[in-house]
Amino acid sequence: MVDNKKMVEKITSREEDFAQWYTDVVKEAKLCEYSSVKGCLNYLPNGYAIWENIQEKLDRRFKNVGVKNVYLPMLIPENLLQKEKDHIEGFAPEVAWVTQGGGEDLEEKFCIRPTSETLFCDVWQKQIKSYRDLPLVWNQWCSVLRWEKTTRPFLRSREFLWQEGHTIHATYEEAEERTKQMFNVYYDFVTEDLAIPLVFGKKTESEKFAGAEDTYTIEAMMHDGKSLQSGTSHFFGSGFPDAFNIKYLDKENKLHSCYETSWGLSTRIIGAIIMVHGDDEGLVLPPRIAPIQVRIIPIAQQKEGVLEKANEILERLQKENIKVDLDDSNKSPGFKYAEQEMLGIPLRIEIGPKDIENEEVIVVRRNDRKKISVKIENLEKEIPTILEEMQKEMYQQAKEFLENHIFTATTLEEMKKIAKENIGFIKAMWCGDKACEEEIKAATEGFGSRCIPEKREQISTKCICCGKEAKEMVIWGKSY
Amino acid sequence: MVDNKKMVEKITSREEDFAQWYTDVVKEAKLCEYSSVKGCLNYLPNGYAIWENIQEKLDRRFKNVGVKNVYLPMLIPENLLQKEKDHIEGFAPEVAWVTQGGGEDLEEKFCIRPTSETLFCDVWQKQIKSYRDLPLVWNQWCSVLRWEKTTRPFLRSREFLWQEGHTIHATYEEAEERTKQMFNVYYDFVTEDLAIPLVFGKKTESEKFAGAEDTYTIEAMMHDGKSLQSGTSHFFGSGFPDAFNIKYLDKENKLHSCYETSWGLSTRIIGAIIMVHGDDEGLVLPPRIAPIQVRIIPIAQQKEGVLEKANEILERLQKENIKVDLDDSNKSPGFKYAEQEMLGIPLRIEIGPKDIENEEVIVVRRNDRKKISVKIENLEKEIPTILEEMQKEMYQQAKEFLENHIFTATTLEEMKKIAKENIGFIKAMWCGDKACEEEIKAATEGFGSRCIPEKREQISTKCICCGKEAKEMVIWGKSY
Repeated sequence: MVDNKKMVEKITSREEDFAQWYTDVVKEAKLCEYSSVKGCLNYLPNGYAIWENIQEKLDRRFKNVGVKNVYLPMLIPENLLQKEKDHIEGFAPEVAWVTQGGGEDLEEKFCIRPTSETLFCDVWQKQIKSYRDLPLVWNQWCSVLRWEKTTRPFLRSREFLWQEGHTIHATYEEAEERTKQMFNVYYDFVTEDLAIPLVFGKKTESEKFAGAEDTYTIEAMMHDGKSLQSGTSHFFGSGFPDAFNIKYLDKENKLHSCYETSWGLSTRIIGAIIMVHGDDEGLVLPPRIAPIQVRIIPIAQQKEGVLEKANEILERLQKENIKVDLDDSNKSPGFKYAEQEMLGIPLRIEIGPKDIENEEVIVVRRNDRKKISVKIENLEKEIPTILEEMQKEMYQQAKEFLENHIFTATTLEEMKKIAKENIGFIKAMWCGDKACEEEIKAATEGFGSRCIPEKREQISTKCICCGKEAKEMVIWGKSY
Repeated sequence: MVDNKKMVEKITSREEDFAQWYTDVVKEAKLCEYSSVKGCLNYLPNGYAIWENIQEKLDRRFKNVGVKNVYLPMLIPENLLQKEKDHIEGFAPEVAWVTQGGGEDLEEKFCIRPTSETLFCDVWQKQIKSYRDLPLVWNQWCSVLRWEKTTRPFLRSREFLWQEGHTIHATYEEAEERTKQMFNVYYDFVTEDLAIPLVFGKKTESEKFAGAEDTYTIEAMMHDGKSLQSGTSHFFGSGFPDAFNIKYLDKENKLHSCYETSWGLSTRIIGAIIMVHGDDEGLVLPPRIAPIQVRIIPIAQQKEGVLEKANEILERLQKENIKVDLDDSNKSPGFKYAEQEMLGIPLRIEIGPKDIENEEVIVVRRNDRKKISVKIENLEKEIPTILEEMQKEMYQQAKEFLENHIFTATTLEEMKKIAKENIGFIKAMWCGDKACEEEIKAATEGFGSRCIPEKREQISTKCICCGKEAKEMVIWGKSY
């Protein structure tokens, strides 16, 4: 019989070495692994099932705001990629090129899409003629490839899975509004379904997307105080459409520019789920996104009636669309508990001969190990309630952690001191100058600008770096 | 006001030119289009929505038989692709190679996956150690790339969307059983959800998958009598696992070979839906797979109460999870009817002032234009019934067409005559020799072997070509 201690000992504690803890959890929960293809990941069943749930829930939110899914080619001809100047400058160094096909050298090479703005423009250039053709609000779920040098599971890999939404509009205002609308969809999804609290706002000039006028970001704080950019929504103005000569005729037959947006969220977010909610026993999944929400673990399952009752409960909960399974393997209950905890399954139901006699079971919450006695007859009613409570409490707990780790600084010296003594984010004023942004990052050993919140707090009137008049209140932090 | 005739006139009739009819329907229903990337398609919202429904329904069937989804890299290193001899011979001529990445020439080139047997083997080689690790039943939804020379929408393109399932087992028998099980899942899905009748069986030696011991196929008859291979399930024996040195230790600690299967279904199937069910007015979608099942079209919608009632019906049907929309644009009802028919939406509800007065509406079935009067209060009950009836009748109608176009031949002369005078399939006996298979195809101007049904009919005892003893009864046909 395997000791349950053994399983836990495979995981380094968070305090000891957070990076190693992360790697251990990803490995032991069998979420993903490095493949033989350098820099690329194998998304294994346990990890991919989380992504499937993310897709399902986020896609429903997209469709509620009129998004239609499409699929465009994975290859981009070299001449298309080059049409928008800033875009090609941003992406050229990190693309992979197909130069041979069907046994021959190609006349024009293709890059594997690092993102698909250029392809969407190419499609729209042919389709859009009049105001009647606008707006188009499209999205695709696909993988993209960027030739990264350093890689980490979920956080950075050459190929990764994501969705990329692309929209085109008749007016500047409508496109700007859509940029914010999709940013709000991300915010609601991440806070409500993933129980991850966020800071959010615009990116600075140097941090925004290649070719964008504005980039909006949601940023989550990991348990080590670093920030993970969790979703971005870009406003392009008419830059891309003009570069691709996409124009429309209005009702008076006059030719006009179009305006575009794009927005993306990737498998990186699984890294955020792990690093916001996980603990020293492994993964802790928010109930709404957990592929298995409840695991039934029988005690003394060889005794008469135990497995029968466990199976009866399984079927009853399945009927209520609760994602439940039963571990009737011949491992010890202790081992099964450790495994369920490692996998982050939100609830386990412990059921043995005594419980059956008393007509109740013990329900244990993964997040705080709280044990709850529940009458067997009430399970269908109680389990969904407990899951929803957990979802809310996990958000609240993460929110407290976030709020307790946001500091305010008015001088660079103060900011350096906070950065040295604490983990977390620092709010400070900024003049808007790129040189100051870089100097602040260097002085604090890595606190870069994360976002400029829309609701500006007037911490002081001066840039924390140069002392000139402050233009923005910025949230600074180290990042993944 | 646009005449509804205009829309229909955009479509060539099926009898006049079936290939042009197909192209017209794909274009006018806005399902997909050629992209600027030669040989690749843009899957547009109307076409992709069908694929999403296919994914949802097929994926549920997969999960019911224990399939778990994963995602492996899109790139395959050259040395991996070469490990299985037949496989590389089959695929090498049609792959695309990535030779540059991150601004540098690569030491080893990567092909974009044409299929992923080699990658799954590579993952399993590291994961499988003992009998406890088996079986693994995995699947991925992804796109693959094959450098095709000629392309047609949905039927053949360089990049296409599909699912590829891969499984590995401890015994020959278990793998063989899984091959057949997944083949049955395809059969049930295509006949039940897509209302497409099938012939099915094994492929001949020359038609099977590169590296497979056996390939099972489902074949559908298009309205022009040609066959469309709609899904295949391959049994690999231990060929791949042995080539990749995947072995497992049994309970007695002895080393054993593993056995594999793979099975795939692609966006080609959308071509089958179009060519089995479509008519001269456009697409006809089976209700179970239609992105929109019912369209409400108001008549004299400017009159008081019409749009209110139409919206009320819309909401009531939405509550019942019927996929319904309302066309309240200012086009004429005739134009709206033509558009709904072109898009293949199974039912339309016509509602005008008189209907409201009579408390009933006209429901029109897309497949046969049958008009049904339904009391407004009964719509929630009646609509699902009508949809299910349509689904069954569309299957029956296609089945009659299939059965009426399968002929039997006992001599090559007879077969040539049938092939010349009819469209459809021909059943005939075969000795098992590749030379005869080729001769038959040449003599009949394209009737190749489609499949060898498991239930063999003993049409005669001799090969239709060489007159030697017959080994198999083969279904022959032209193919897409």
